[in-house]
Amino acid sequence: MPQKEEQLGIKVKKDKDFSEWYNEVVIKGELADHSVVRGFMVIKPRGYAVWEKIQSYFDEKIKKSGVKNAYFPLLIPESFFKKEAKHAEGFAPELAWVMDEEQKEKYALRPTSETIMYDSYSKWIRSWRDLPLRLNQWCNVLRWEVKQTKLFLRTREFLWQEGHCVYETEQECDREARMFLNEYKKLSEELLAIPVIEGMKTEKEKFAGAKTTYTIEALMPDGKALQMGTSHNLGQNFAKAFDIAFLDRNEKKQMPWQNSWGFSTRLIGAMVMMHSDDKGIVLPPKIAPTQIVIVPIFFKDDKEKILKKANELKNKLKKYSVELDDRDSYTPGWKFNEWELKGVPLRIEIGPKDVEKSQVVLVRRDNNDKEAVKIADLDKEIENTLGQIHKNLFDKAKKFLNENTAEAKAWDDFLKQIKDKKLVKAPFCGSMECEGSIRDKTDGATSRAIPFEQPKNIGNCIHCRKQGKFMVYFGKAY
Amino acid sequence: MPQKEEQLGIKVKKDKDFSEWYNEVVIKGELADHSVVRGFMVIKPRGYAVWEKIQSYFDEKIKKSGVKNAYFPLLIPESFFKKEAKHAEGFAPELAWVMDEEQKEKYALRPTSETIMYDSYSKWIRSWRDLPLRLNQWCNVLRWEVKQTKLFLRTREFLWQEGHCVYETEQECDREARMFLNEYKKLSEELLAIPVIEGMKTEKEKFAGAKTTYTIEALMPDGKALQMGTSHNLGQNFAKAFDIAFLDRNEKKQMPWQNSWGFSTRLIGAMVMMHSDDKGIVLPPKIAPTQIVIVPIFFKDDKEKILKKANELKNKLKKYSVELDDRDSYTPGWKFNEWELKGVPLRIEIGPKDVEKSQVVLVRRDNNDKEAVKIADLDKEIENTLGQIHKNLFDKAKKFLNENTAEAKAWDDFLKQIKDKKLVKAPFCGSMECEGSIRDKTDGATSRAIPFEQPKNIGNCIHCRKQGKFMVYFGKAY
Repeated sequence: MPQKEEQLGIKVKKDKDFSEWYNEVVIKGELADHSVVRGFMVIKPRGYAVWEKIQSYFDEKIKKSGVKNAYFPLLIPESFFKKEAKHAEGFAPELAWVMDEEQKEKYALRPTSETIMYDSYSKWIRSWRDLPLRLNQWCNVLRWEVKQTKLFLRTREFLWQEGHCVYETEQECDREARMFLNEYKKLSEELLAIPVIEGMKTEKEKFAGAKTTYTIEALMPDGKALQMGTSHNLGQNFAKAFDIAFLDRNEKKQMPWQNSWGFSTRLIGAMVMMHSDDKGIVLPPKIAPTQIVIVPIFFKDDKEKILKKANELKNKLKKYSVELDDRDSYTPGWKFNEWELKGVPLRIEIGPKDVEKSQVVLVRRDNNDKEAVKIADLDKEIENTLGQIHKNLFDKAKKFLNENTAEAKAWDDFLKQIKDKKLVKAPFCGSMECEGSIRDKTDGATSRAIPFEQPKNIGNCIHCRKQGKFMVYFGKAY
Repeated sequence: MPQKEEQLGIKVKKDKDFSEWYNEVVIKGELADHSVVRGFMVIKPRGYAVWEKIQSYFDEKIKKSGVKNAYFPLLIPESFFKKEAKHAEGFAPELAWVMDEEQKEKYALRPTSETIMYDSYSKWIRSWRDLPLRLNQWCNVLRWEVKQTKLFLRTREFLWQEGHCVYETEQECDREARMFLNEYKKLSEELLAIPVIEGMKTEKEKFAGAKTTYTIEALMPDGKALQMGTSHNLGQNFAKAFDIAFLDRNEKKQMPWQNSWGFSTRLIGAMVMMHSDDKGIVLPPKIAPTQIVIVPIFFKDDKEKILKKANELKNKLKKYSVELDDRDSYTPGWKFNEWELKGVPLRIEIGPKDVEKSQVVLVRRDNNDKEAVKIADLDKEIENTLGQIHKNLFDKAKKFLNENTAEAKAWDDFLKQIKDKKLVKAPFCGSMECEGSIRDKTDGATSRAIPFEQPKNIGNCIHCRKQGKFMVYFGKAY
């Protein structure tokens, strides 16, 4: 019997200790677990099912766009990390190494696959006919420099997709980088119910080796920004470093343009942080592995009748992913708690009185609203309610984002807003040095995004007071 | 224009130099490529699409059976490989190592995940209520001991699925191991058109750490057996080593029973070897990323008319995966060669005369049969033909298997049959030593499978002449 009852609930409040609350919610909600290997996580079936939903949604987008999936080696020769200087510098602290004793060769576990893929690209690309070359891979990557593990957000190994395309012209190449950023935005907003801010990264924050990095950023409930996906116009930097060239339509040798773009399992962490509460996980309906749980409420006498009805309901609702919790050894109250902990968006309760009245009770996970619904109207009502749950989660997150986004023109105001955990838009000169100083003086605020839409007059840099180049969002970040 | 024409075709004949032919077919058919990293391969889009078809077919089987997907760490602490002695011994030569300098801990890149998964299992399993625990993961694995690379078949990294289930009783556990072996057989025969022999492995050949290993084996055209998938009843060996225990229904501590089962990207290699020919790849229709290619045949005058018709056809055939090759810069003959090289099962040719007669010409990749078909009958005809192609490939492979399977009672006959590249069924005593001698005296023949069906009287061991325990298939193997 439910011996574990006292362990089941979440012990820490979200607004008391956000970090500990998050860890507890992820583990007790059975999305992931810490591994005995320091810095590594185990993605449990409920967490992996969320990843599969994200994969299946986005893999369809990838394929529709004409990009094809492939798979490249996990190991990258040390020498490859010396070819593109900035890439090498940026990733140096992230690398774990494997020695091939026989070959006296040292290999890095891939932290990202530009170098190993572009070595093949340089062999495959000869003519303009070979372009565009558009590939993606779904794989594991390793980044060693993790000080404190946070499930899904900071682990030495994570899962992701990385797209890598090559074009004849920069225009096509950049257009695609922007197009996939927009797809990331849709994924974030339409599937995960997380509103984002779009823009470009500054010189200091852009991807190591990129010409331009595009980003979408979300604001977590603890006031920290979280990068949800990035897309890079790599210019010709890697083409130069890896000697990728093609004969154009006039038989002239040219250097192509490249982009790369990716998002990872950290999206799952963002979603949990954003929507979950003191009772456990809250999942937007489109991403929930189980969308509806049916909990029959019965006593000895009417058990058979109620279970029969509950099974009928389950069959009727086949187009959703439904679980019927008909376990004997747990009370309905216990079951309610467990499914709330696991984040099932909608609960259907059905008891003797409901059967009498040909109704059920719908209970929403996001706001606990209860409603008796005639079984005849159920399908329509569920569709509505699932839509409302998504909308409610998104609207709440959007309201939070709006309320915690500010603008500052003066340094003192900037400091105060950053201290108040806002995402602060401010005029900025663009210098890496200046950005370093801002970081030092704010205990770690970094630039998050240069919005695409910019005012005509920027004003003076928030920090150095030189002429500003653009408005930039600053904030603390994961 | 087609400058590369002379490079396109396969240079080596299948029956002249099988090994070199295979390498050429895989590379020119664009399934995979060698990587600059010794022993590693790049799976190219056409090869990866085949893997995705296999994944999607089998993932559905996995989910229907109730097994759930999850993901465990790539790295495994060195100490874990010391816990199960036979497992440790079996995998020792396969391991590549990563040092965590800070932690002074040494990690192996997973060659298989029993140890890292069962460490988590020992934390998760407490009561009979936690059983069965049934998980699978799709991932990359690394096995270092590869002397000579062979794309898909022998590479240091490959992709696979590995299922790992835990049960209260051995009966359930073993039943599932057998059930998944049967699913592997269906995958091999119904999807890949490769007939297999089922059975158990001998003591010498079973999985390191298993109680019983079940296997399906195919016979390649060069007379070598290839293991297509294995399923292990692990008994309680790992439960003991990793201290997995549960309280049973009477509150008594018990040790559970485990199985594991897997197949890998080597299936793609097996399929290529089995069916392909001197013109390139041959793919069974159910696994082909492109099932049909339409090649329009036109001269300047009728180009528009023919292309219009070809596009209509493409739309009409949407339920298949169809490509229309409307490239201007290649001749129809060039295109025929290219698509034959890539293994598209069915080609549709449409020229001016065909349009006049409301017909097209269907050309089969497997046997080159041509047939004019009325457009009105096309859908029915295609469905039939694709079915026939699968059947023809399977039947040919089955005939080959039958003709190259033999039985031997006397040692001399056994030696001759092995030399003739047969898979030879012979009585065997079961001793590891005896099997070692057989291997030495035959230049490498190993036991492949102990068939489930055994005669009543086995006779004397083919080698040592002691009483035989069972009939066993022996052969050279990949």
